[in-house]
Amino acid sequence: MRVHMPEGASAVAPGLPDFPFTVEATDGTARAGVLQTPRGTVFTPCFMPVGTKGTVKGVSPDRLRSLGAQIVLANTYHLAMRPGTDTVQALGGLHRFMGWNGPLLTDSGGFQVFSLKTTADIRDEGVAFRSVYDGSPHLFTPERAMAEQRALGGDLVMCFDECPPAGAPAAALAGAVERTQEWARRCAVAHREAGGHGCDGPQMLLGIVQGGVDPALRRQSVEGLLALGFPGYAIGGLSVGEDRDETYSVTGYTAGLLPADRVRYFMGIGDPAGLLEVIERGVDLFDCVLPTRTARMGTAFTREGRLNLKNSCHARSTEPLDADCDCPACTHFTRGALRHYVQQKEILGLQLLTEHNLRFLFRLVEDARAAIVAGTFAAFKGARGAPW
Amino acid sequence: MRVHMPEGASAVAPGLPDFPFTVEATDGTARAGVLQTPRGTVFTPCFMPVGTKGTVKGVSPDRLRSLGAQIVLANTYHLAMRPGTDTVQALGGLHRFMGWNGPLLTDSGGFQVFSLKTTADIRDEGVAFRSVYDGSPHLFTPERAMAEQRALGGDLVMCFDECPPAGAPAAALAGAVERTQEWARRCAVAHREAGGHGCDGPQMLLGIVQGGVDPALRRQSVEGLLALGFPGYAIGGLSVGEDRDETYSVTGYTAGLLPADRVRYFMGIGDPAGLLEVIERGVDLFDCVLPTRTARMGTAFTREGRLNLKNSCHARSTEPLDADCDCPACTHFTRGALRHYVQQKEILGLQLLTEHNLRFLFRLVEDARAAIVAGTFAAFKGARGAPW
Repeated sequence: MRVHMPEGASAVAPGLPDFPFTVEATDGTARAGVLQTPRGTVFTPCFMPVGTKGTVKGVSPDRLRSLGAQIVLANTYHLAMRPGTDTVQALGGLHRFMGWNGPLLTDSGGFQVFSLKTTADIRDEGVAFRSVYDGSPHLFTPERAMAEQRALGGDLVMCFDECPPAGAPAAALAGAVERTQEWARRCAVAHREAGGHGCDGPQMLLGIVQGGVDPALRRQSVEGLLALGFPGYAIGGLSVGEDRDETYSVTGYTAGLLPADRVRYFMGIGDPAGLLEVIERGVDLFDCVLPTRTARMGTAFTREGRLNLKNSCHARSTEPLDADCDCPACTHFTRGALRHYVQQKEILGLQLLTEHNLRFLFRLVEDARAAIVAGTFAAFKGARGAPW
Repeated sequence: MRVHMPEGASAVAPGLPDFPFTVEATDGTARAGVLQTPRGTVFTPCFMPVGTKGTVKGVSPDRLRSLGAQIVLANTYHLAMRPGTDTVQALGGLHRFMGWNGPLLTDSGGFQVFSLKTTADIRDEGVAFRSVYDGSPHLFTPERAMAEQRALGGDLVMCFDECPPAGAPAAALAGAVERTQEWARRCAVAHREAGGHGCDGPQMLLGIVQGGVDPALRRQSVEGLLALGFPGYAIGGLSVGEDRDETYSVTGYTAGLLPADRVRYFMGIGDPAGLLEVIERGVDLFDCVLPTRTARMGTAFTREGRLNLKNSCHARSTEPLDADCDCPACTHFTRGALRHYVQQKEILGLQLLTEHNLRFLFRLVEDARAAIVAGTFAAFKGARGAPW
């Protein structure tokens, strides 16, 4: 599957800040790396929890830290609509705003302007859409996406891209690759002109590979981005409805085209099985609302698979959610009590389940990293992925 | 105002467990005491946060502890309806259920069966009512209230009482005092017959004084309860809609009738001004949902009074909620960010505001205690109560 793996250090274009990234070990195509940001070190592979509107729902920053979060993601689209990135900047930037002094990644808003289904017009200039908050008209361009992200001041920032849905016609996919390439160029220019800095320090800008499930388009997209010399690369446009086997196949193919010495971010995957699949294929970073959103629905991740606390069989269970877990929910509460909180829509229930699902994923990924370092990732994936 | 203050130790009836309570200092009628429960020491005056359904909404037990909570209250009515006290007992009792190993107080359900307005019939046997959860019929009697509280296993438990609304006719008030007295007798009998123990240790049973705002009825109620020899006494039937001056006047009168060596609990007060008033009149314990409920509405307690974060003037404020406060909200977040969370109904907003309001009250009461010990309570009350 792997087609091309550039040797040695890849070049980053002048004026684009680059945080040191080192691959410490590989096991097959899986990698254990270290990304050193100005706000702390991120050991990869690493799952990034999503703080959509500037908070991981129901989890305080200190708890997030103690659960093992290394870097948190926030959504530029939502923060640009409410309270406005100018307000976030006036309040000291996103780190101060969120009470999180560790590394932050902001997306560009590209995914939301397409996925929230309020797109009015996609043109070369940018995307016109209506706010999901109040219907007001907006135009996101590559330049505006970069400006919004500067005002937020995340450590890692993303290019503005066009993300078509699964099953988009070939011409639409090809058009999206070309437009994403041109927008990436404009993002790099805008970022360079702004000195590579946000309101609160240097920002590492990642390019986003598009191309759907078409290998030729993926290759075209990668080659175009490589020519622009980004310090890191994201694989976008997957987990948008395509078949899971295709997701993994395209991920493996695309990762194999990317420079070995650059960090790789798969946008939008958070189920235990999926994480192990993309880790196996050489992905370093990933994010998803799945663990936190399913927790709020009453579902916990466990070594044996998903556990739905709404099921009445748990009503009198004195077992912990997961006997192997060291999170507050598992060390201090029975399944029966947690079920009561979930059934009664008590906030503590979703807090505890969110913390648990995050802790479960953080440990899974930490253990995956240890297995990569030990050269036992295949066996690890077989054992831990099996119930999923 | 003070009419009667028995000297020396008051007698507790045989078979009713009594936890050591010592008044360490007095300042006027205000007291600084120590209540030693089997699960920890409670320094009084002490505000008890309310964990209605087995959780203080939005606050984890470890956070509750670190904020300064000494003892937590839970509602027997709600837990009897959902998940059922038998289920709580099967899950290890209420301490294990809540993940809180400190002292717990359960009420008797008496207040809810009246205040939730689903009362079908009040008779000498008990109160017939319909569950607010599913409309199912129930009968709470003194014996059942004690059985429910045994199954929960709180450390402090309450007699089942009749609590008329403010403005009830004189005959209704008098009837409630007589019935409350008879029910208190039956509660004491039931408790003694059960060995004074709940599912999880000895339980200290408190009598509840009724009588509305009528001093003669209050005196009758106190004298009746004293004859039954409870190890502690609650002042019930206030904060039910009567004039605030009457609340304080009746509280002072009633507290003055109670034995000096017994703990006194005012049921249902939680605003800073009101706490200082009842502390001044010799109350040791109090509870209320006010600080936690108002927090969920976006209102914070501060040294300058209430602060409503929904007010747009806070949108870009980089100030903390309260410069004197050491809670997570005040040490890590700006008013602007907190307002954003409140406006967006982000769970973190209500978590942080709930923690803040609790911390504010815990410190206010701790400071009040220190002032009592120092003999400076009047000045303290004048200074800290003024903005309220």
